[in-house]
Amino acid sequence: MKKDVRNHILAVGADLVHRQGFNNTGIQEILKAADVPKGSFYFYFENKEDFGLNLVDFYEQQFAGMVKPILANKAEKPLQRMRTFFGSFREFYKQNEYTRGCPVGNMAQELGDLSAEFGGKLSCSIDSMAAVFVSLLDEAVAAGDLELQQSSAETAYFIVSAWHGALVRMKVTKSPEPLELFERMVFDNLLR
Amino acid sequence: MKKDVRNHILAVGADLVHRQGFNNTGIQEILKAADVPKGSFYFYFENKEDFGLNLVDFYEQQFAGMVKPILANKAEKPLQRMRTFFGSFREFYKQNEYTRGCPVGNMAQELGDLSAEFGGKLSCSIDSMAAVFVSLLDEAVAAGDLELQQSSAETAYFIVSAWHGALVRMKVTKSPEPLELFERMVFDNLLR
Repeated sequence: MKKDVRNHILAVGADLVHRQGFNNTGIQEILKAADVPKGSFYFYFENKEDFGLNLVDFYEQQFAGMVKPILANKAEKPLQRMRTFFGSFREFYKQNEYTRGCPVGNMAQELGDLSAEFGGKLSCSIDSMAAVFVSLLDEAVAAGDLELQQSSAETAYFIVSAWHGALVRMKVTKSPEPLELFERMVFDNLLR
Repeated sequence: MKKDVRNHILAVGADLVHRQGFNNTGIQEILKAADVPKGSFYFYFENKEDFGLNLVDFYEQQFAGMVKPILANKAEKPLQRMRTFFGSFREFYKQNEYTRGCPVGNMAQELGDLSAEFGGKLSCSIDSMAAVFVSLLDEAVAAGDLELQQSSAETAYFIVSAWHGALVRMKVTKSPEPLELFERMVFDNLLR
């Protein structure tokens, strides 16, 4: 029961922060949207920073849940799984009218300079994201489907950053074009 | 004189917003840092949004001023000018201990979903940034120094986004590594 309340506050906060940013979202607003009293919030979280740090874990788990079935689908070759991954996120953003972007990338941009603790945690979260691509790239190389000019780790981090940047431009163009371009450049050029 | 006060408020605000974000910076804070009365601010700017829109122009002019001498240096080949460009920004970030990131990219991320007017203006600002690279890439192609797989516009927008994403990761790793990786991937791979 208690775990449910904590998770409910995190889920409601995750949605608000994903839509409008961390600095732009107040605790009061989260309490109101979650329909819980102030005491509940402070029972689970020390302060807004502590809530934010837990939010990063929440987003990471959410992301892992979204990508798990895609990565586990061995019926597709590793590079095709990567295409499916980016295609399914493009579909998610389409459904959300090209808003939001990557919650971890957003928080990294917003909070990277404001708190070393946030910085470290968000950097690790980006590492986990890159690790997904490292494993797919390594699998593709081992299968003889891909030759890389740089290491799989370098390529993976570059892909994550290029995606984060494309998501930023998606938010101002309100179109799929930046994501489509990202996918073309990655699959037709970088990983060809 | 009046123009100086307006410019002074913008310069002080530009620095604060670059360091801590737009949503995280209040008008009061800008007034205090600029040492001007409230009336001065509202003489030049309708409200915080209007100030922010003018800030985008300010950043664009600042950027143009920084890149002009690099682009005009015909002693360097176009791709070398592009390397010099990214190297000089890497040096800027080093001096700022890998904080801040791209002010336009930051605002695009923070405000792209919150105001259509901001979104349109920031999208145009990213267009101007891409235009710089389009012209360098076209020049390199014309000189026979480069063969592109995609159009110069597509390549330029991809480079801008990849840079924005690398700057986000720079803010959480507090190291030059994301920018150095970006430069290697762009010059040794994408534009090789």
